[in-house]
This record gives sequence, C-alpha cells and structure tokens, in this order.
Amino acid sequence: MTVPVELLAERLRRASVEAARQNVDLLVVTPGTDLRYLLGIDTSTHERLTALVLAAAGHRAPPALVVPRLEAPGLAGLPLDELGIEVVTWTDGEDPHLLVSDLAGVPRRVAVNDTMPALHVLALRDALPGVAQTLAGPVLAQLRMRKDAAEVAELRSAAEAIDRVHARMGEFLRPGRTEAAVGRDIADAIVAEGHTEAAFVIVGSGPNGASPHHDLSERVIEAGDVVVIDIGGPLSTGYNSDCTRTYAVGGEPAADVKRTYAVLQEAQDAACRAVRPGVSAESVDTAAREVIAAAGFGDQFVHRTGHGIGLDVHEAPYIVGGNDLELAPGMAFSVEPGIYLEGRWGARIEDIVVVTEDGGERLNGRPRDLVVL
Amino acid sequence: MTVPVELLAERLRRASVEAARQNVDLLVVTPGTDLRYLLGIDTSTHERLTALVLAAAGHRAPPALVVPRLEAPGLAGLPLDELGIEVVTWTDGEDPHLLVSDLAGVPRRVAVNDTMPALHVLALRDALPGVAQTLAGPVLAQLRMRKDAAEVAELRSAAEAIDRVHARMGEFLRPGRTEAAVGRDIADAIVAEGHTEAAFVIVGSGPNGASPHHDLSERVIEAGDVVVIDIGGPLSTGYNSDCTRTYAVGGEPAADVKRTYAVLQEAQDAACRAVRPGVSAESVDTAAREVIAAAGFGDQFVHRTGHGIGLDVHEAPYIVGGNDLELAPGMAFSVEPGIYLEGRWGARIEDIVVVTEDGGERLNGRPRDLVVL
Repeated sequence: MTVPVELLAERLRRASVEAARQNVDLLVVTPGTDLRYLLGIDTSTHERLTALVLAAAGHRAPPALVVPRLEAPGLAGLPLDELGIEVVTWTDGEDPHLLVSDLAGVPRRVAVNDTMPALHVLALRDALPGVAQTLAGPVLAQLRMRKDAAEVAELRSAAEAIDRVHARMGEFLRPGRTEAAVGRDIADAIVAEGHTEAAFVIVGSGPNGASPHHDLSERVIEAGDVVVIDIGGPLSTGYNSDCTRTYAVGGEPAADVKRTYAVLQEAQDAACRAVRPGVSAESVDTAAREVIAAAGFGDQFVHRTGHGIGLDVHEAPYIVGGNDLELAPGMAFSVEPGIYLEGRWGARIEDIVVVTEDGGERLNGRPRDLVVL
Repeated sequence: MTVPVELLAERLRRASVEAARQNVDLLVVTPGTDLRYLLGIDTSTHERLTALVLAAAGHRAPPALVVPRLEAPGLAGLPLDELGIEVVTWTDGEDPHLLVSDLAGVPRRVAVNDTMPALHVLALRDALPGVAQTLAGPVLAQLRMRKDAAEVAELRSAAEAIDRVHARMGEFLRPGRTEAAVGRDIADAIVAEGHTEAAFVIVGSGPNGASPHHDLSERVIEAGDVVVIDIGGPLSTGYNSDCTRTYAVGGEPAADVKRTYAVLQEAQDAACRAVRPGVSAESVDTAAREVIAAAGFGDQFVHRTGHGIGLDVHEAPYIVGGNDLELAPGMAFSVEPGIYLEGRWGARIEDIVVVTEDGGERLNGRPRDLVVL
C-alpha cells in the first residue's frame, strides 16, 4: 500500500486543522510513525535533524521539510512538490533548529511528535525561546486513531498473517525444547508468513508465563507447562500484528488451570463484546476486570486491558482505567487481559478488535480456549 | 562481554561526579545505549516509563530504577542490589513521572538522556515545575567517549567481522545484479560473520553513489560502475562496526576516476595520520577537507569527516568543523571523507580509528584503494 498523494494531502490538511482546534500553532515532526503517516516516509533518524514543519490552519507558512543535505537525494521518490512542501536543507556544522525557528514565524505553542528525541526537543526549546512546547500526540492521535478502510485492510492482513503462525504452533512448541529455540522457529515463521520482521516473540513457559513481558529464556519446556505465546510484527506497509494465545503442552491441564483459564476467557470475551461506538475506552477495561476480580484474581491482572495498534504496535487509544475517550468506528486496539500466578504460571488472550458502526470486530480468528498441544 | 558489576558501579559513580561537575543535580535515563552503558540493561522502551534516577555526587538520594510493575520480573538477572539501586514500580493508570519527582528531592537542573522521547521529556518537565531541563549527553559522553580496554577489544572484534564481509565482496558484487540483491547477500554475510543484525547496508552504484546516504535500489549494476559499500552492525555486546570501501566493478576504472579517487585516498590517510591525543576533533576534519578542497572538490565533500562509535553507531566525538574537543586516548570514531559527483558517481573510504597514547590506530584493515572486482 503506497499511500496515495491525495490521502497524504488530506492528512496534512486535517493535521493542521486539528492543531488549530487544540490551540497549537505549529507541528514539528521528526522521523517515526507520525511522519510515515503524514508523508509516507519510512525513515529512521540519527542525531541529524529531519523534521516536517507544519503550521496550523489559519497560519500563512507553507509546510516545509528540514533535512540534512546529504539525505536530500533520498527524498527523490516522494511527492513533496505535489504536496506543496518546501525542502530546506542544512549542512553539518549548521544548527538546523534555527532553520525551524526561521520557518516558524512567531508561534505561541509548538507541538513536537511524542517520540522526538530529547536532543531535538531541548534544542528546539532553545531556538524558540518563550514558546510553549507541547506534544503532537493528542493532535495526531485524532487522525491516526480512526483507521480508514485501507488501514483496516492492512490490519486484517497482519492479523491473518499472525494467525497463520499460531496455527503452526504445534510444529514449534514441544516438551524438551527451550523457550529460545521455540522462539527462533516462531520468529522465522513470522517472517515466512508475510511480516518484514519478528518485532517481538514472547514464549512464557510455566512460571515464566507469570511475567507478562518475559520474552525468551533457556528454560526447557516440560510436559504439563502452560505457555503464553505473544507475537507480532509489521507488514511492509508498516501496519502491525499482535496476538496472544496460551497453550497447554503435553496433555490436558490440571482442573484448577482449566477453571482459572475459563475466567480469563470469559473476561476477554466480555471485553470484546463491550466494544461499540460511544462507550468509553475505560469501560472495555472494566468489562474484563470485573470478571477477573469477581473470581478473586483482581490482583493477578497487573496491566491494562489493551492498546491501540496501527503503524505503532502501541498507540492510542489505550484501553485503561481513567481513559474516558469515546470509542468510534475505525478505532483498532488489542483486548488482552491476563492472569498471572507468580512462581506458577500465567495466561493471556489477545485479539485485535476494530470498532464498527454498531459493535466491534475481532480481526484474529484462532480458537481462544487453552489449546492443548 | 557481560559488564562486571564493579565496572557498572564505577560508571555510576563517575556519572554522578561528572553530573555535579557540570552543575546537574539529577540524571534521568530511559532505555537506550546510555542505560545499557550504566546498568548493562539491553531493553527497548514503549510508552511506559522505565528510568534510572541518579543523583549527582553530593546529593543524598540513592539511585533508583522506576519501572512498570509488569516489567519488574525481567530485572531479576540484574545486579541492582549490589549496585544499591532501589526498584520503584508503578502500575498502568498511575503517573510514573510523579514518582521521579518524588525521588528527585528539590533539584535545580535535571538532565535527561539525549534519546528520551518527548513524551517523557515534557511529562517530566510538568512533574518538576520550575526545574531546568538539560541534556545528559554532555555528562555521559565524558564517560562513554573514552573506551576502556574491553570496549576497544569489542570494537576491534566488530571491525574484524565487517572486514571479513568486505573481503568476500567479490562473491556478491557483480555486473547484472541489482543493488537490492547484492545488499541482501551482504546483510546475510554481516550476520554470518558475527553481528547480531545488519544495521545498515548501503550499495551506491554509479550515480547512486553520489548520494551519501542512498541505501539500496533496484538499479542493475553495470560493468564500469564505481560502487560505494558502507556496512555495519552490532555484536551481541552492543558494540558496532561501520566500514566503507569503494569498488570498481567489471574492470579498470577510467583515468579521471582514478585521479579523483587518489585525492580521496590521500585525504582519508591525512585525516587518520592527524589523529593523536591533544589535537582537536575539528583538526582531523580539516586534515581531510584541505586535501579535497585543494584538488577542487571541496563542494563535493558534503558531510563531516566522522562520528564516534561504540554502543551507538553515531555518538560523540563528532569529527566536524567547530568541534574543539581535545582528542584523548580511548576515543574511537570513523574517518570517512567522500567525494560525490552528482549524476555520475561517488566514493568514500571509512575506517574506525582509536586514539592511542601517541597517535591513532585504524581498526579496519582492508585495502583502501579502489578495489577492482
């Protein structure tokens, strides 16, 4: 999916309007997913400043891209002329932050992208004395949270790709193998099934499953282990997958494991069913948390219920207590409650859910029971 | 190389002393290479705050590590007790930046790591009202710039690994192949020769070589092309390689190419010979630039001469006009002048050089002439 130039132009226009609505005069955006969303540029940044400078609606200045002279040839394929973006180059030894202030006019509030490195944040602060700095996240999230049809299609492709990896789990996850060895096979499968890389591979076996962000270890998986597998990565378009299933290795799990897992499954299902336009992000978290708390495991569910997903694996909206954001069609996020019994085992179920006109649709389709391998 | 706990303790101590010397009261360091240097933690960060809070020498507060509760189990292998570091956990929904301000006492100046995302920089600013924010880079660079013997050994291993890839270039770089195909083979070789990943692969053939940061394209390499190959990546210890050689594919290059390349080779050699303790970083840049300018190519050398290297591919010291930093033993950086003839071809030669007691030592050993393949 190369983003059509008309769509990029529309995103730039909406960003400038939303900036004005939020009393921001100027957006400054360095490489990362925000810049990829606005310009279709997939680039990383080192210490040299590359930045889109975009005035809020109502201001006169045209958008500009400040870029190191030696990077300028790499922009040849971009529709900068069509988008009316001036390219402003600088050379090693110059201070590019002054160029931004030259382009900025006299703003009152400048918003920087959430991932801008402190190196540039503080240099811009010094180059624009007396100007309030704020985050561009709340402005750009208003655009990025609501996925259009093409973006939902990409998330669906990503979900199908990671589902194919989970479908093959029996090839990889066997007693006698280390988590690390299983993880290597899964990483290969993530790429083989259509991702550009395996961005994360969690194989949490037995007691390691009780640590939600455990990744891999040299622990040998034993018959009877409960194993949390949380995996994902980006497609070439930048849109990500993220899906967790929990497996019982080497035969039927114990009765208490089944009972606890059933609580989790009910909680995850309740949260997915709670998704619809007009309800708050918090209410989806509450839907999962109430089921788990009622069964006595409230203290063992130590994280929020989910996070938005798109060009970033974690982005707005966050499905967390205190977030009163109203869900709206096109929002996409994970629903992934977990129960973690320290020293023993853990379980988590995660689907990506898209808000539709009248509810929510899970993009992942693999069975959600405790899969016995 | 697992960094010994005594060495980590010494780095923390020196960081707090250097902070005090630079009138910084508190260092706040989120995941990245600074944290890896100080704590041996190789972790990335998402939107959840993980941060080392380290008071300057003379302050009373012990160091603390603020970490999301769900990440805490992942710290089990770290020598935090031995280092006297208190672990302070927080849970989704809490504001971890307030925890940092609780730990901070009443600082006048707080320094944040250069790569800290704006999300945390601005939240810390708000959590510590009236406190000046500055960059930790100048504090930590005083430690990180001077490599110890174990670090130089790692950089040497990395240089040898990338030299082995250049030694195999005849296997990959042939007329009729695309830059992208050549690049894939090189990337595989970078991993096969001992790196954990191919962090960057530049194959700039013919006119593409005139763009210093061109990476790869579908251009088919032709007999007679001059090709710039700039490649590198990290070892498992985190230390990086970075080495450029320029090749003539399919026979002897034209006489004017040879003449221009000879200028570049003389410039790179002059810059390497200029390296010794006590001279400025700028003077090494000047040594290369004078040779190139004298031959009439000053405007075709569009970037600085080099950058420091270690846990980051680009770090202090920067070998650039205006940098009056005095070189000292243990500093390691690239020396990589280039000449770029737009629309025609380009050339660059890059070695990693370590400052010794009485000069400089190149860690890369491959021939520096225009290698005919």
